Amino acid sequence: MARQERAIRTRRMILEAAGAVFDEHGYASTTIAMVLERAEVTKGALYFHFPSKESLAQAVLAEQVLFGAVPSRSSKLQEVIDMTFAVGQRLRSNALLRGGVRLAVDQETPSGIDRGEPFRQWSRRLTALLERAAEQGELLPTVRPADTVDLLVGAFTGIQLMSRALTDRADLADRLAVLWAHMLPSIAVPGLLPGLDSRADRGVRVLAEIDPARAGAEAEERTPAGVR
Amino acid sequence: MARQERAIRTRRMILEAAGAVFDEHGYASTTIAMVLERAEVTKGALYFHFPSKESLAQAVLAEQVLFGAVPSRSSKLQEVIDMTFAVGQRLRSNALLRGGVRLAVDQETPSGIDRGEPFRQWSRRLTALLERAAEQGELLPTVRPADTVDLLVGAFTGIQLMSRALTDRADLADRLAVLWAHMLPSIAVPGLLPGLDSRADRGVRVLAEIDPARAGAEAEERTPAGVR
Repeated sequence: MARQERAIRTRRMILEAAGAVFDEHGYASTTIAMVLERAEVTKGALYFHFPSKESLAQAVLAEQVLFGAVPSRSSKLQEVIDMTFAVGQRLRSNALLRGGVRLAVDQETPSGIDRGEPFRQWSRRLTALLERAAEQGELLPTVRPADTVDLLVGAFTGIQLMSRALTDRADLADRLAVLWAHMLPSIAVPGLLPGLDSRADRGVRVLAEIDPARAGAEAEERTPAGVR
Repeated sequence: MARQERAIRTRRMILEAAGAVFDEHGYASTTIAMVLERAEVTKGALYFHFPSKESLAQAVLAEQVLFGAVPSRSSKLQEVIDMTFAVGQRLRSNALLRGGVRLAVDQETPSGIDRGEPFRQWSRRLTALLERAAEQGELLPTVRPADTVDLLVGAFTGIQLMSRALTDRADLADRLAVLWAHMLPSIAVPGLLPGLDSRADRGVRVLAEIDPARAGAEAEERTPAGVR
């Protein structure tokens, strides 16, 4: 059992190191040696878990959707909103998530790596939630959940990218609030709108709910120096 | 005059070759030699126009916004819609545009190259159009043109990227139609909505208006084999 726990922890350390290196250098320039140095594990341990750079990249991509974890809500549309803000917030602090996003977005990622997989995973997960929202009467009858979700995943991808290029993601939460302000009137039944929360600080509050200590630190990081 | 025309044509050939090579290989793997071979111009001619790989990349990025050219419309919101569909359609046939998009999107593009510039150019251009739309009473009073435009540019970026990763951009026009179906009710005055055209084949029709012969060929390219 102790050995198994150690293996899980080692695998995690390797994944986190690989995410950070992929985020900083991209697929082509990343070498196993760079990941080894960052992870501080033995070569044997790394190859035991990941036989190749390809398998490392695929594992980093597969982790992405796990960062969408948020508390369950009675309004499934609110849960979808929360997921976008939580991922936006986690992008600021988590290099494994950033590495997966870079691998999915960069055209240099070779075709042997399935860059489409995270897009499909997010789509499946969010479509299931929006379909439940529809069953509960939260959505306008014109909404086709799969279309709305594809738009949401594509728009989120581009918004975080533009936010990264222009402000190193400092304004991402504000941009997500603008996205929801434009989309919600076209998808939610009018009676639901006043109860939905899609303000820019939603991500900070959702993470605080999950882990009060850590989210506090993240909120502080967000605060410009001298404002505290 | 003949010499000047030749210089303009040479510069154009180099830019188109550079766009294609950047699109296929990304910034880091592109070499001047690859561009020379593709452009079929002399080394002297290339260095006369572009002293470095950086200057080539910056010029390719600067060309991007020119691909937004569409006929003027009385409804400025329609003109914005047309621009998105025209760029979407041109992305399928124009390697110079694709190269610029890849340079702007790929994280590997070095920080010495200003990747944010095309985002800012699109934003300025579209904001000017949306402000005119607002003056003409086309927009709901709640709309802040700069916010709506930032959302539009970010969403477009991600939608084309997701479309490329999943279908090599074959479904891009359909995705743009979904984007507008979700955004228009939040930005246009209700009376304008029935008159706006944001159907998926809008790009093909706008390009046919500009250049009937060429757009015909592009529409044929879109048709799957055996359907004609």
